[in-house]
Amino acid sequence: MRTKILSILRENGSDPVSGEEIATRLKISRTAIWKHIQILKKEGYSIEALPKKGYVLTHVPDKMLPSEIESKLKTKWLGRQVNYAQSVISTNEMAKALANAGCDNGVVCVAEEQSGGKGRLARGWFSPAGDGLWFSVILKPPFMPDEAAKCTLLAAVAVVRTVNEYKGINAVIKWPNDILLEGKKLVGILTEMSAEFGHINYIVIGIGINVCVPKSKVPEDLRVSAISMADVSKEKINRVELLASVLKNLEELYEIVLSDGFAPILAMWRQYSATIGKEVRVIAPDMTYTGRALDIDEDGLLLVDRGNGVIEKVIAGDVSIRPVQAKRSKYE
Amino acid sequence: MRTKILSILRENGSDPVSGEEIATRLKISRTAIWKHIQILKKEGYSIEALPKKGYVLTHVPDKMLPSEIESKLKTKWLGRQVNYAQSVISTNEMAKALANAGCDNGVVCVAEEQSGGKGRLARGWFSPAGDGLWFSVILKPPFMPDEAAKCTLLAAVAVVRTVNEYKGINAVIKWPNDILLEGKKLVGILTEMSAEFGHINYIVIGIGINVCVPKSKVPEDLRVSAISMADVSKEKINRVELLASVLKNLEELYEIVLSDGFAPILAMWRQYSATIGKEVRVIAPDMTYTGRALDIDEDGLLLVDRGNGVIEKVIAGDVSIRPVQAKRSKYE
Repeated sequence: MRTKILSILRENGSDPVSGEEIATRLKISRTAIWKHIQILKKEGYSIEALPKKGYVLTHVPDKMLPSEIESKLKTKWLGRQVNYAQSVISTNEMAKALANAGCDNGVVCVAEEQSGGKGRLARGWFSPAGDGLWFSVILKPPFMPDEAAKCTLLAAVAVVRTVNEYKGINAVIKWPNDILLEGKKLVGILTEMSAEFGHINYIVIGIGINVCVPKSKVPEDLRVSAISMADVSKEKINRVELLASVLKNLEELYEIVLSDGFAPILAMWRQYSATIGKEVRVIAPDMTYTGRALDIDEDGLLLVDRGNGVIEKVIAGDVSIRPVQAKRSKYE
Repeated sequence: MRTKILSILRENGSDPVSGEEIATRLKISRTAIWKHIQILKKEGYSIEALPKKGYVLTHVPDKMLPSEIESKLKTKWLGRQVNYAQSVISTNEMAKALANAGCDNGVVCVAEEQSGGKGRLARGWFSPAGDGLWFSVILKPPFMPDEAAKCTLLAAVAVVRTVNEYKGINAVIKWPNDILLEGKKLVGILTEMSAEFGHINYIVIGIGINVCVPKSKVPEDLRVSAISMADVSKEKINRVELLASVLKNLEELYEIVLSDGFAPILAMWRQYSATIGKEVRVIAPDMTYTGRALDIDEDGLLLVDRGNGVIEKVIAGDVSIRPVQAKRSKYE
């Protein structure tokens, strides 16, 4: 209902809308409208009440509020239910709790701030309030558990497509799912799955996008390796619009998987890959080696030619792209 | 400490042991011993205090108490930490909560009763108090998520080996992990996994064994399809000893996987299979068909020859063994 009230106010821009008109259009009482408007004000909206004229929306808070997201959303089902929090340990934890309690396919969790944001391999992800887009998507796919790993590649494609729609941004994917801009980390993705034999209970895809994290806020040890969209983008970035675009892309790609499988996704992934064709160093659980990244296979695993006739399939661990020069690179 | 006190009392059988002796051996005060003994009494132990002689253990409760389990355990690491509850929704839920909070590899959860015990495909599992062995094992294996499904076959082998050690019991495995005795369900196993790309966070293996569920307690619709060990066994079954044996077998098989992979486990699974070589009906998510179960492949998937030149790989769904006669079988 509050989304509908906001939508009427938005339609009318700087022209006031009377409580009576809103009441008639939404078929609720003027008292109910007054109550909703008080709540919206608490959320940070500025709504002026001009005597005998009506309400005008004068300011929208820069927050990831569900009513804002709903107003921008172009998806059919993804993100049609949004759970919002000012601060959480991580949106993946929030999403897993909801999924464990049996929520629907396509629910999205978003927070202004994560106190314990996580990346792959239990690494931290710096997620300060208001400066980034930190969210998680809950999917309940009909495919098998051994296909799930490819969802992380799917998410990387959806995000890189979205951020590259902004002028000046030309990001790439480092296998499996880091998104790099000018060689630095722009986006982190952590896909987690709950499954039983032959059945996925749910997949949670957590995505953290550095939108406009000021360098001064970034811990010193991350400063050289992290970057924000705002550092490079030639246009202003609205986080709500950015989220709506990512969800739109995610939904489209997911529906391609449902109808045609993962092959088209892997083909797209290759186009954005910063890894294929490069000399890489692989830190696997049991060994470290270097070689040339040839391709990903149909399971999304990286094929690395070690040059001694051995082609390794990288199924886990860390892959860094080696610089042409001998010194260690900022990619690593 | 209570396990140690019980162990001293057990050693001495019907001979009383003085508080002073226990205090000296365990290097704690006599007051501390007295307090521990009060707690043990509350748990259901009968411990007589004979004046000027000492303590005698006269009765051990028929419960899955951690101190009882510890006294029977022959494993190196599996089940060395036991979490016990009188009644839970399911031991898998209990185990997943612990695993999410970061518990160690090898922790075991056991309950007298499950109010919402679950089998595969969201089916219920009837788990009344005191009549069965309902427990879950938390594993944090170093292998890859796509190997995890085979843990459910591993668990089936461990359990069938254990129950078949009891005289008169000759159970078999129906693919993938139901354990049947005289064509009826004796054991249910539900394996759940939490994973991210290239990394298993944890696996929870939930095992429910009908030890001595009285027919009168069993809901009418399950009565024809369920069976208890006590219905067939020629010897008395102690649940604590049964659990200790299952854990011993599980640990052994798991260590085989760590050193030699899953091939030896699949070979053992085949020996106990009630499915291979049989005419089966497969209810897959997208179709139903019949055929002859040929074997399992290296991933543990069932290969079914449909007789029209097509060999199907069954990766999910339900497989029932068809009777030689035309009528529906109790196996189904």
